[in-house]
Amino acid sequence: MDTMKGLKRTAYCGTFRSSDIGKEVTVGGFVQRQRDLGSLIFVDLRDRTGILQLAFDETSDKEIFDKAFTLRSEYVVMAKGVIRERSSKNKDIPTGDIELEVNDLRILSKAETPPFEIVENSNTGEAMRLKYRYLDLRRPDLQKNILMRHKIAKIARDYFYENDFIEIETPMMIKSTPEGARDYVVPSRIQNGKFYALPQSPQIYKQLTMIAGFDRYIQLARCFRDEDLRADRQPEFTQIDIEMSFVDCDDIMNMTEGFIKRVMKETIDVEIADIPRITFDEAMNLYGSDKPDTRFGMTIQDISGWASKTDFSVFSDTVKNGGSVKAIVAENGAEKYSRKKIDKLTEHAKGIGAKGLAYIRWAEDEPNCSFAKFLKEGELEELINTLNVKKGDAVFIVSDKTRKALTIMGALRLIVARELEMIPENKWNYLWITEMPFFELDEETNEWVAAHHPFTMPMDESIQYLETDKSKVKAQSFDLVLNGTELLSGSMRITDCELQNKMFELLGMSQEEIDAKFGFLVDAYHYAAPPHGGMGLGLDRLSMLICGVDSLRDVVAFPKVQNASEPMSGAPSYIDETQLDELALAITRTDEE
Amino acid sequence: MDTMKGLKRTAYCGTFRSSDIGKEVTVGGFVQRQRDLGSLIFVDLRDRTGILQLAFDETSDKEIFDKAFTLRSEYVVMAKGVIRERSSKNKDIPTGDIELEVNDLRILSKAETPPFEIVENSNTGEAMRLKYRYLDLRRPDLQKNILMRHKIAKIARDYFYENDFIEIETPMMIKSTPEGARDYVVPSRIQNGKFYALPQSPQIYKQLTMIAGFDRYIQLARCFRDEDLRADRQPEFTQIDIEMSFVDCDDIMNMTEGFIKRVMKETIDVEIADIPRITFDEAMNLYGSDKPDTRFGMTIQDISGWASKTDFSVFSDTVKNGGSVKAIVAENGAEKYSRKKIDKLTEHAKGIGAKGLAYIRWAEDEPNCSFAKFLKEGELEELINTLNVKKGDAVFIVSDKTRKALTIMGALRLIVARELEMIPENKWNYLWITEMPFFELDEETNEWVAAHHPFTMPMDESIQYLETDKSKVKAQSFDLVLNGTELLSGSMRITDCELQNKMFELLGMSQEEIDAKFGFLVDAYHYAAPPHGGMGLGLDRLSMLICGVDSLRDVVAFPKVQNASEPMSGAPSYIDETQLDELALAITRTDEE
Repeated sequence: MDTMKGLKRTAYCGTFRSSDIGKEVTVGGFVQRQRDLGSLIFVDLRDRTGILQLAFDETSDKEIFDKAFTLRSEYVVMAKGVIRERSSKNKDIPTGDIELEVNDLRILSKAETPPFEIVENSNTGEAMRLKYRYLDLRRPDLQKNILMRHKIAKIARDYFYENDFIEIETPMMIKSTPEGARDYVVPSRIQNGKFYALPQSPQIYKQLTMIAGFDRYIQLARCFRDEDLRADRQPEFTQIDIEMSFVDCDDIMNMTEGFIKRVMKETIDVEIADIPRITFDEAMNLYGSDKPDTRFGMTIQDISGWASKTDFSVFSDTVKNGGSVKAIVAENGAEKYSRKKIDKLTEHAKGIGAKGLAYIRWAEDEPNCSFAKFLKEGELEELINTLNVKKGDAVFIVSDKTRKALTIMGALRLIVARELEMIPENKWNYLWITEMPFFELDEETNEWVAAHHPFTMPMDESIQYLETDKSKVKAQSFDLVLNGTELLSGSMRITDCELQNKMFELLGMSQEEIDAKFGFLVDAYHYAAPPHGGMGLGLDRLSMLICGVDSLRDVVAFPKVQNASEPMSGAPSYIDETQLDELALAITRTDEE
Repeated sequence: MDTMKGLKRTAYCGTFRSSDIGKEVTVGGFVQRQRDLGSLIFVDLRDRTGILQLAFDETSDKEIFDKAFTLRSEYVVMAKGVIRERSSKNKDIPTGDIELEVNDLRILSKAETPPFEIVENSNTGEAMRLKYRYLDLRRPDLQKNILMRHKIAKIARDYFYENDFIEIETPMMIKSTPEGARDYVVPSRIQNGKFYALPQSPQIYKQLTMIAGFDRYIQLARCFRDEDLRADRQPEFTQIDIEMSFVDCDDIMNMTEGFIKRVMKETIDVEIADIPRITFDEAMNLYGSDKPDTRFGMTIQDISGWASKTDFSVFSDTVKNGGSVKAIVAENGAEKYSRKKIDKLTEHAKGIGAKGLAYIRWAEDEPNCSFAKFLKEGELEELINTLNVKKGDAVFIVSDKTRKALTIMGALRLIVARELEMIPENKWNYLWITEMPFFELDEETNEWVAAHHPFTMPMDESIQYLETDKSKVKAQSFDLVLNGTELLSGSMRITDCELQNKMFELLGMSQEEIDAKFGFLVDAYHYAAPPHGGMGLGLDRLSMLICGVDSLRDVVAFPKVQNASEPMSGAPSYIDETQLDELALAITRTDEE
C-alpha cells in the first residue's frame, strides 16, 4: 500500500470547474468506477462533494498507468495532477467539463467488493444497507441528507444565538419522571438499587434555567423514549429545544416563525409567508383535525341547521341530541366516486367509527342522493344551495356527536383529497394551532391527562373551569403543523407553585407523589420566576421534511430499527456477570429473539 | 400578582449607558436589593447582563411608589420608564451613571427569602448551593461561567465548521466496549437480558464516519464514564470531538492549534504564539512528566556522566546498573531550603518512591553538600560547574532507574517551583507532546495496555518492535498540555484490518473477544478507508481553565457530586416494581447511603 507522504489535498473533487484548467491540484477520495479503454483509463473519484474524472493515457508515466489499471471500486486513492479540459464532456455532473491529468497516484487503501453498489437510489434492501451502514452512508443521497441535517442544526444555532439565546447543556442522567411515554433507565453502581433516567426531554431543566435567570435558553438536546417503535420513531432523537423569559405565546411563536422562515430559505430556497394562526376549535371545525393539511380546501361544512328541520330522523335526531351533521363537498368528485368507490369509502368511515356515510353524487342531470327518499320536496335543493354543490361534485355527510363527526370527516377529507389528487406537491403549508385543550380524556382509562404536559399554563379565562369542567380548560400552548404533520409543540409554563400543585392534583397525583417526583421543581418556583415558555422542535423530523424523505432513518447517521437494535453493531448486547454484580442486578428472564 | 400585559421588554438591564438618557424603555429582572430612604426608593434590578437602578421618588405615581415599597430580594418585576442621569453616580458598575425613572411597575412573581444571598463570591457552603442550584446559578459569577462555556462551544463550532467539518450526531445508546474506564449501561425492555452502553466517547462511530467518506467530522459529544469520582471528574462530560481524513498527526495538531489560538483570543483576548512541540521522551528527560508545566524553567539535568566517575557508590553503582543520576537547580533556593525544609522535601520524595534525596545548598560562602564526604577533591567543584550552580542556589539530586529518577525529579520540580513561587500567574503555556508510547505497563497486572486506545496507529518505524519490545513502540499520537494539565489527546487510527487485529491480539484479546466486541469495526475497514485521525478536547476542562475556576462544577450548569448523585433532584432514585419487571431485572442488594 502507498502512503500519502509528500502529498497534501488541495481541494475537494466536486469543486473543480473550467476556470481551474491548468491548475496543479491534489485530490483524495473513493474510486466510484474505473473504465479501461485499452490505451485510456478513466477513473471517477468520489468524495463528499461529488465526482472528479481522473485520466490516464499514453502520456502517463507507465508505473502510474499500470497502477490505475489495478484500481477497483471503493479503493481509496490520492492523485496529483493538472486540471485539463475533457475531450468528451459530461453535462450531467458539475465537473463534467474537466478532468485531472494524473502525474502522481497513491493507492492508500484497498477495498473488498462491497455487498452492494455505492450508488444513488440504491435498490438494495434496507436490512442489508443498515448492517453495512458505513457503506450505505457513502451513497450520495444519504451524504446529502446528513450534510443537510448539519446545515439545519447550524442555522438553528445561528438564528437563536443571534436572538440572545445561549446554549446550556442539561444533564442526560436525571431523575425518572412520569411523562407519559417510557423512560430508559441507567442503574447506579455507587447507589445500588437506584436508577437514573435518560431524559425524554430537558423540560424540567430548561424551566430551571429560566428560574436561574438565563432568560433565553437553547439546546439541541438528545432525548430518549422507550416506546414500541413505529416507522417514524427512533428511541433516541434530537430536539431543537428553546425556552424564553418575559414573553407570552405570541412571542414564542414569532421567534420560532423567524427560524422556520430562515431555515426554509437557506436550505431549499423557499420563501414562507407569515404563518396563519387558527385556534384548536377552528381547526377541528374546519378540518376535523388538530393538524390540518391546508394545501387544499374542501373544508368541513356544518349542515346541522338544515338537518334539524328535515324529516330524515337520522339527521334530525342527531341534532336534537346535541350532535351535528357535517359535510364535505368534493368538487368534480362525482365521476371518480362511483357507487363502488363510495361503498369503499363508507367501509373506511365505519372502520373509524362512523355509523354510516350519506352522500350526494351529481354526475348526470339530476343529483343522486342516498337519503333522497326521506326528504321533503325542496329540501335536497335547499341543501345543495347551502353547500354550493355544482354538477360534477360529490358530497359526503356524517351525523354523530359533534367531535366524532368532525374527526371522521377530517379523516375522509384526507382520503378524498388523495384520491382526487387534490394535494399539490412542493407546497409548504405551515399553520399555527393555538388555544389547545389543557386536558385530554384518556379513552382507555377514562381519566383526564395533560394534553401537552403538566407544567403548561392554563389560559387565564379558563382557570374558572379547572374544578368544574375539564373539557373547557384551554392551555397557553400551541402546535406548528406542516402539510398535516405536527412539527412542534410549545407552551407557557406555570410559575405559581400553588397553581402547579393544583394541576398535579387535578391530574390525579397525590401530594406524596408530587413531592417525590417534582418536589424540587415546585420548590424552585417558591423563589420567583419570570413568566416563561418555550417549544421543542424535532430536528430529525424537520430534516426529513426538508430532505424530502419518508423515513427518519434517512436523516439519522446511525439509526436503530423497529426492535430498538442497531443492525451494524448488534447493540444491545449481553454484559458480563461481574458488571451485573457490581450493579447489584439479576436478570429474571431472557427473551430470545 | 400583576401580569406583563401591555409591556414588552426593550433591552437587558446591564446594557444602558449615558447615551440612553431620555429613552423610554422596559426592562425585566430579579430584585437584587431594595433601599428605602423614606421619600426615595432605589431598586437594583438584575438580569444576566448586569444591574440597572430603578428610582422611585415624590414625582412617582403613589400606587407605583407603594408597590416599590413592597419589593423584596429576588422578586421578579418588569418596569417601564425613562432613563435619566443619576444624581449620585456609581463608578463600580457599567450602568452607574444612569437610572430608570419608573412609570409602570409590575410584580410578576414573589420570592420567599432565599436560603442564601445571591451575590458574587458567595461563602455559602457548596452542599447548600448545589441543593438550590437554580438559585446558585443566579449568582453573577456562575452566570458568567455558563455564558463563557456557551461562547467557547460556539467558537468551536464556528471554527471547525469554517474548516469544512460537519457535525454528525452519533448514537448515545451503543454496544458496550471495554475502553478501560467503566460503561454506564441501559437495560433493554424489548430484548430482556441485554443492555446498551452509554458512550465513553464517540470513538468508533467517528471512525465509521471517515470510512463512510464524510471526510471531516465534529461533534460536541456528551460522554459518560462510571468512575469513582474525583474532584475534577463528572460522570457525564462534553467533548469537542473531531476526526479528519487524508491527514497526518501534524495536520490534526495544526488544525487544533488554530482553534486554541482563536478561542483564547476571542474569549479572554490572549494571543497564543505557535505552540512548541516536543516528543514524549524529551518531555520526560527535561521535565520528568508527560504533561510538563513550562511556565518556568528548572529543567532536569542529567549528571550520570559525572556520577559514573565518583567514588560515591550510590551514584556510580546506579549508573553502572543502567540507571541515571538527575538533578534540578533551584536558583536562589538556598535560603528557602533550610535543613528542616529539605528534610520535608526528602520525606516527600521518599513518599513517591525515592530511596533518598541528595542536595547541595550554597547559602553561605561554601556550598553545603549532603554527599561531600564521599567525593574526591575537585569533584564537587566539577559538579557545580557542570550544573552552573551559583551562590544562593540549592540543588536536588536523585539516582535511580532512569524513568523513576525522572518521574521523581518531575514531581519535585513542581513542588520546589511552587514553594519558591516561580510559577507566574496569567501565563498560558501550551505544549504539544508527540511520539507518545503506544503501550503502557499496567503496574497492578503487569500487562501491557494501550496508552491511548487500541485503534491508534503505531509509528511506521516502530512497527518492527511490536513483537519484540513493546516498550519501544511509539504511537502516531499526541497530547496538548496547558500549564501542566493535559487538555486533549489525539492520534492517527489504524486503517489496516490485519494490523488492527494484531494490535488487539497484542493487547491480550482472543479472536473471539475481538469479533464480539469490535468485529463490525474491523469488518468496516475491509471496504477501504482514507488515512484518518482526530482528537477529543474536554469542553468542561477548557471552560474551567478559561474561566479561571478550580472545579468542573463551576462550569457545568447542573453538576453531580462525588457519589454521582445530583443534590437538587435527588437522582438517582428507585424505580417501581412494574418497570423493573418489564426490564426483567431484580435488585440483588441495596446499599443504604
